[in-house]
Amino acid sequence: MPKLYDMHPSGNCFKIRLLCNMLGVPLTLTPVDFLAGEHKRPPLTDLNPFGEIPIFVDGDLVLRDSQAILVYIARKWGGETWLPTDAARMAQVMEWLMVAENEIARGPNDARLHDKFGYKLDVELARRNAARILGLMNTHLSKHLWLALDRPTIADIACMPYIGIGHEGGVPLTPYPAVEAWIGRIKALPGFITMPAL
Amino acid sequence: MPKLYDMHPSGNCFKIRLLCNMLGVPLTLTPVDFLAGEHKRPPLTDLNPFGEIPIFVDGDLVLRDSQAILVYIARKWGGETWLPTDAARMAQVMEWLMVAENEIARGPNDARLHDKFGYKLDVELARRNAARILGLMNTHLSKHLWLALDRPTIADIACMPYIGIGHEGGVPLTPYPAVEAWIGRIKALPGFITMPAL
Repeated sequence: MPKLYDMHPSGNCFKIRLLCNMLGVPLTLTPVDFLAGEHKRPPLTDLNPFGEIPIFVDGDLVLRDSQAILVYIARKWGGETWLPTDAARMAQVMEWLMVAENEIARGPNDARLHDKFGYKLDVELARRNAARILGLMNTHLSKHLWLALDRPTIADIACMPYIGIGHEGGVPLTPYPAVEAWIGRIKALPGFITMPAL
Repeated sequence: MPKLYDMHPSGNCFKIRLLCNMLGVPLTLTPVDFLAGEHKRPPLTDLNPFGEIPIFVDGDLVLRDSQAILVYIARKWGGETWLPTDAARMAQVMEWLMVAENEIARGPNDARLHDKFGYKLDVELARRNAARILGLMNTHLSKHLWLALDRPTIADIACMPYIGIGHEGGVPLTPYPAVEAWIGRIKALPGFITMPAL
């Protein structure tokens, strides 16, 4: 059974638990003491030298980075549904995995790391980044039901968590009704599970 | 023939030109007047609302984000060579595409944007980020010839440019000999082309 090194309030860990639950993939959860810095010391840094969670272990394979882990799960257990392999549609999903890795990480995620976990970072910059990406997503989702294709994909799973819990970093969704409606559609999908504050 | 909205000193545009040249994909280049902000106005923002380049157009398909574009080119013209479709190896390539999108963008790329293009950003933070990712890459490349697999993939193409031109942002490679050697291996690949300062 694959194993997830997990922390309950992490949106990046949550997205792995969520996709696994939707696909019926059983998962062994190993809680990590994040506040004590367990992920920044051996033995966890032997698994992931980046000193971050989630870490996903499936047999001999050890993967870091939540977006890369979603790709693995979708390819191994999701057929063509959550990540198609044809060039155009795969690239359209990738565009939004990159938004999760970049604009969302440096926007609502950073703002929450500051407010909730006391990270020393430029929270005003994080809130400006959040406003920019939420505006772009709201415009996009005013014309599309899902981020990348005409159905849910790992693009939606990757981007949703830190958007949905952004209010914990002073980034509420009230100005972005199309984003709020999209989160509601994800919550209505079969197999959805939630996380604190979502 | 696919079209690239291009800027010559952009590492993100270069990586698209490089992979296309290696695969023998002919490309129409449309130069963008970056310093005049052409990418932040219509008609380019109609193609990419994010207001960024590169933009890649192939028939009806319009793609933004250099990593997503590499995925498209590799899937459409590269067979299984540059981006394999099996779950484990695809995810291992993805781990490093995410490093290009996150750690390298917020490290050597940001430092160069500050020094070369006058961007107002925290350049000391960018240099600390650069030192962290270069240290991690140097350790990894001391044990591996290529970033993701036992051969070059789009992981190497995605990560290399801003590492190789980091000296334009005060991030030289002298302390990272395994990274320098890896860049040398990429430069020796068939079809390699270069860019200014590389």
